[in-house]
Amino acid sequence: MRDTAVVPRAATGESSLARAVRVLEAFTPEEPEPTVSELARRSGLHVATASRIVGQLTAHGLLGRGEDRRVRIGVRMWELASRASPTRSLRDAAMPYLEDLHAVVGHHVQLAVLQGEEVLFLERLSARDAVVNYSRVAGRLPLHISSSGVVLLAYGPPELGDRVLARPMERRTPATITTPERMRAVLEQVRRQGYALLAGHVHENATGIAVPVRNGLGDVVAALSVIVPNDERAAAAVPALLAAARGVSRSLPPRGPADQPA
Amino acid sequence: MRDTAVVPRAATGESSLARAVRVLEAFTPEEPEPTVSELARRSGLHVATASRIVGQLTAHGLLGRGEDRRVRIGVRMWELASRASPTRSLRDAAMPYLEDLHAVVGHHVQLAVLQGEEVLFLERLSARDAVVNYSRVAGRLPLHISSSGVVLLAYGPPELGDRVLARPMERRTPATITTPERMRAVLEQVRRQGYALLAGHVHENATGIAVPVRNGLGDVVAALSVIVPNDERAAAAVPALLAAARGVSRSLPPRGPADQPA
Repeated sequence: MRDTAVVPRAATGESSLARAVRVLEAFTPEEPEPTVSELARRSGLHVATASRIVGQLTAHGLLGRGEDRRVRIGVRMWELASRASPTRSLRDAAMPYLEDLHAVVGHHVQLAVLQGEEVLFLERLSARDAVVNYSRVAGRLPLHISSSGVVLLAYGPPELGDRVLARPMERRTPATITTPERMRAVLEQVRRQGYALLAGHVHENATGIAVPVRNGLGDVVAALSVIVPNDERAAAAVPALLAAARGVSRSLPPRGPADQPA
Repeated sequence: MRDTAVVPRAATGESSLARAVRVLEAFTPEEPEPTVSELARRSGLHVATASRIVGQLTAHGLLGRGEDRRVRIGVRMWELASRASPTRSLRDAAMPYLEDLHAVVGHHVQLAVLQGEEVLFLERLSARDAVVNYSRVAGRLPLHISSSGVVLLAYGPPELGDRVLARPMERRTPATITTPERMRAVLEQVRRQGYALLAGHVHENATGIAVPVRNGLGDVVAALSVIVPNDERAAAAVPALLAAARGVSRSLPPRGPADQPA
């Protein structure tokens, strides 16, 4: 999750664009419809400044305001971001395989990329009676707790691994990996077997299984995963997952579609 | 489709935010990775100005640049737009029903909302061997040619109907509705029977069938549709579509989730 602590007040010379970005960054999945005062507080801007910027962004359709005066991301912004997004060719290539996998395995299937030092979930299909799952579309999880994150870490740049392993790793359940030694062993195992299977690392009842998706150059650009009940049948999903990832790779455009990590 | 003609040069007093919005608007589904000069031309800005704004937006992660120097929408912008989007509760409520419908009907199933005076497609599931379809996620179509558009028009505000019917209606096939008289008759029929079935209006080989999705107040907030082959079996999809739309309505949060039309 992003840090939503109050940031310092903006310097006076900051451009209106930089301030607008601060306002946009202050929208969170937990509070998608803040008031102007909440936005001002979170973005470290004066209420009058935040209000003016919200007015301008609303005039351009990038934000919207309801009858309750709360501020929302506008449909126009979603449209601009989605129709030209670098994640789109990846999502388009993966969608038929996600559907096939979902029909066979059930529960949750998801597609994720590395963004900064976290996992960003691009797509998720869920059955109505599926096991508990904390990921969501456009949501993030720390790399060390999710099977997708561990796959992206295992095949990511070595410097990333060094940075993540040097930091404290939050414990979610007794099974969560929290020491560099254990994480190094798990990453080595993932590279050897070609998938990550984490039973009960985010929630005791759920098992995450993730495999790498490679582009035409062989680089890992995404992780494909399923979240299934934490029982002895979980591993049965591995072959279907590996086959689906090969299908996605084959369907990707020749150039790597994922954006450079920020 | 949006008009991508060259716009007049920006006034000198324009804020950096207004210029950034112009740059963002210059990304199109047809050319999602323009060069800085192309962006400058489309947005009516000097190349130096466009270059500076691209630099700022890239620094904030809202745009990205590849090794080929072309400019792309950044994953960070997609994330911000998606995780707090007002379309998200609608999409989340609809997704399980879209999947069920897709499993039963095949071909294409889609979810669309009214945006301005066009249909904006929020989601689409497609089979690999499906019939031809010109819609795409975050893409738009004119209201008068697509079954989703005709449904949104039939249940939309009367002023919208007046404006759309007063304008020339582009012909795509011999079946496309192009006169106000015929459109009025079709809209009347849609309201009477509760769905729109347009055989061969966008492409001769495809039939679009759309039904309204209502919120808890009974307002139509979206259209659910299927695109199937243009043959005598097309109408068989109507009952499944009507049932799915009722399911989506029941799953919607009590408040209407769709943004106000821009």
